[in-house]
Amino acid sequence: MDKNFNNELVGACIFGQSGGPTSVINASAYGVIKTALEAKCITKVYGAAHGIKGVLDDILYDMGEEEDYELKLLLNTPASELGSCRYKIADPDVDDTDYKRILEIFKKYDVRYFFYNGGNDSMDTCNKISRYMEKVGYECRVMGVPKTIDNDLFGTDHCPGFGSAAKFIATSCMEIGKDTDVYDTEMVTVVEIMGRHAGWLTASAALATEFGDGCGPDLIYLPERDFDLYKFTEDVAQVLKQKHNVLIAVSEGLHYADGTFVSEAKTSGTDGFGHAQLGGLATRLADYIKARLNVKKVRGIELSLLQRSAAHIASVVDIDEAFNAGKVAVESAIAGETGKMVAFERDDSSGLYKCNYTLLSLSSVANYEKKVPLEWITDDGNYVTSDFINYVLPLIQGEPKIPKANSLPRYARLKKVRAKAAE
Amino acid sequence: MDKNFNNELVGACIFGQSGGPTSVINASAYGVIKTALEAKCITKVYGAAHGIKGVLDDILYDMGEEEDYELKLLLNTPASELGSCRYKIADPDVDDTDYKRILEIFKKYDVRYFFYNGGNDSMDTCNKISRYMEKVGYECRVMGVPKTIDNDLFGTDHCPGFGSAAKFIATSCMEIGKDTDVYDTEMVTVVEIMGRHAGWLTASAALATEFGDGCGPDLIYLPERDFDLYKFTEDVAQVLKQKHNVLIAVSEGLHYADGTFVSEAKTSGTDGFGHAQLGGLATRLADYIKARLNVKKVRGIELSLLQRSAAHIASVVDIDEAFNAGKVAVESAIAGETGKMVAFERDDSSGLYKCNYTLLSLSSVANYEKKVPLEWITDDGNYVTSDFINYVLPLIQGEPKIPKANSLPRYARLKKVRAKAAE
Repeated sequence: MDKNFNNELVGACIFGQSGGPTSVINASAYGVIKTALEAKCITKVYGAAHGIKGVLDDILYDMGEEEDYELKLLLNTPASELGSCRYKIADPDVDDTDYKRILEIFKKYDVRYFFYNGGNDSMDTCNKISRYMEKVGYECRVMGVPKTIDNDLFGTDHCPGFGSAAKFIATSCMEIGKDTDVYDTEMVTVVEIMGRHAGWLTASAALATEFGDGCGPDLIYLPERDFDLYKFTEDVAQVLKQKHNVLIAVSEGLHYADGTFVSEAKTSGTDGFGHAQLGGLATRLADYIKARLNVKKVRGIELSLLQRSAAHIASVVDIDEAFNAGKVAVESAIAGETGKMVAFERDDSSGLYKCNYTLLSLSSVANYEKKVPLEWITDDGNYVTSDFINYVLPLIQGEPKIPKANSLPRYARLKKVRAKAAE
Repeated sequence: MDKNFNNELVGACIFGQSGGPTSVINASAYGVIKTALEAKCITKVYGAAHGIKGVLDDILYDMGEEEDYELKLLLNTPASELGSCRYKIADPDVDDTDYKRILEIFKKYDVRYFFYNGGNDSMDTCNKISRYMEKVGYECRVMGVPKTIDNDLFGTDHCPGFGSAAKFIATSCMEIGKDTDVYDTEMVTVVEIMGRHAGWLTASAALATEFGDGCGPDLIYLPERDFDLYKFTEDVAQVLKQKHNVLIAVSEGLHYADGTFVSEAKTSGTDGFGHAQLGGLATRLADYIKARLNVKKVRGIELSLLQRSAAHIASVVDIDEAFNAGKVAVESAIAGETGKMVAFERDDSSGLYKCNYTLLSLSSVANYEKKVPLEWITDDGNYVTSDFINYVLPLIQGEPKIPKANSLPRYARLKKVRAKAAE
């Protein structure tokens, strides 16, 4: 391969998006694409359709064919604009079919830079590709760009996507808190929040209570602690003694001590849910409280997909950091780095929040999950401490200026011109 | 009672909120309270706690005690800040207990103006109080201020609250549309939207498709047409032939030809839902499609309470009109009107949308429901026509400047000082 006068590796790059979308994953895409298009040593910028699947299927888009204006709209466009996948790549020592194909495509398009944007599994994919290319002696810089609303990526202070989801959750919980408090009758509302194994998002609901004049959840349950239905019922009864309207935030990943998810637990006599097995977790718990505590009105609410797609209320800090994660990945690769993931380091030494960008070895982050520290959960397990609030508050800051047409969001409209192979 | 030099009726006023909240019902409250506080002939402005219940229980707040700044925040505060109720008042000819009590309170506080903000039932309450006061010869101007996200109030082009809910629904459907389109596998998503008897809100989901580059529902089902499960399945199969990702908007009030709500229909052989009776309507229909059409991935999403409480994405047109509805009610009452509801008349004779404020007799609006005209639903019953789009588009316009603290909404914080009786 070639190096230019600056001793930079010369060749094309491929960028791919993987895993579940976030409100700002396209901001990272813009960070990668813009920086790569501006880099002299990067000859072509390709976007892979549906992540690594687009590489395997040879469906690549030539990003140089897009209009600048449309590309910039990626900053406020939710979901994965190039398409995503949940493709589990094999261990190259067991089956290297996919890797041979990837190498073939890399050679076909003279690809010397590969940027992959995703969560735990995607960093694993990225790591395996990096090791394979090294093993076969094909020089290619491989960099991971983090994303996940779940905030469970290891080695980084937080993840792009989390701040915006946390902001949507806090705002929605404040609005729900207001709405459920209008009648003077007893009411218990349970809100179910995403996070199968880590409670970061559910914990963020506390922002509504802390900064909304109490207008948020009274009780918060995270999957970091085993769920106890008796204790839960007692907690609710306790709050009902003080106020008639109780709001509860629960993580979808709540589980009993034996590991069974509360949402999936079977009926089992007095310990379980009786016959109230309808609906999701929120409805289940709400119905249980209704039966047990004889509460007049209960409600179960699922915040659902909107948690990861409500770009209209994204955090500017999150958008900026997502963009920078992509930018730093490209810049670092050009500077010679490979096999790394961009990570965030919090620097509040000045008293103000600041995010520094660092690099971590992909092998050190892949497949680990970062959970909410137990000491950030109150002793009685039903709320979070001020340490958590101080952690999350800087991440939701800033109101994005959303490009609109007809008072509705105007998302990026890419041409997606299929790439031609290098000559 | 007294008249002043302008021959205006002099006395106190009571304002109350009733029925389900909307994102902008407090904007109407501000319209009433601000205008009344500024009116010379209105000696005191009282807010009733939980609507008519606050009058019956003698729990009134003195609005003159509030800070201007906090009152103004009502423009962007969701839910019913004074509290609401769903109290069904008796027919005065059958039981006049409540009316006697209301008269007693009106006399105690020298109330000569009564403003009531609500939907169909509340206009009925308003009408009955008006007729009773007339009958017993107590001079009191009674005015209704409309509100309902359902948009089903009779005699008005549209209702305050509808435009903001429509905007949240359209934006969310666009975001969901983006999110569900990221994988290259077959997926059917059903979104359940509020509206038990009228499909105005569900129909608004079409805005996402029309203005989001197709990024919205492919199929829309309103309660104005009987639901046919076979036809529905065929419709979905038809769309699946053209694209792998199908988004469907359904009204919570969908019902079969015999009137049974689809969400409540019992298992009944091949016509019904088999054993898939879990969850709400969206999940039910999604599970049915999965079983019938063998679709790999399905999803049911309920937009839930956020439809009426997402003030952060309200329509400025809606906020302004809600404020004006309150203002016009007070001004009209001072000018001598009574027994009327403020209504909206659309004037697009200039080619631009304009809203004129008119008055309707309360007895003509109470208890009627306005539905989506059948000619605004396509012949095959699974989408809306451009007439509907032209109707709804002007109502969602304008981005509100939401007062924030810590990047979260800053809602009004009223002191709610209990009123003292007139001397």
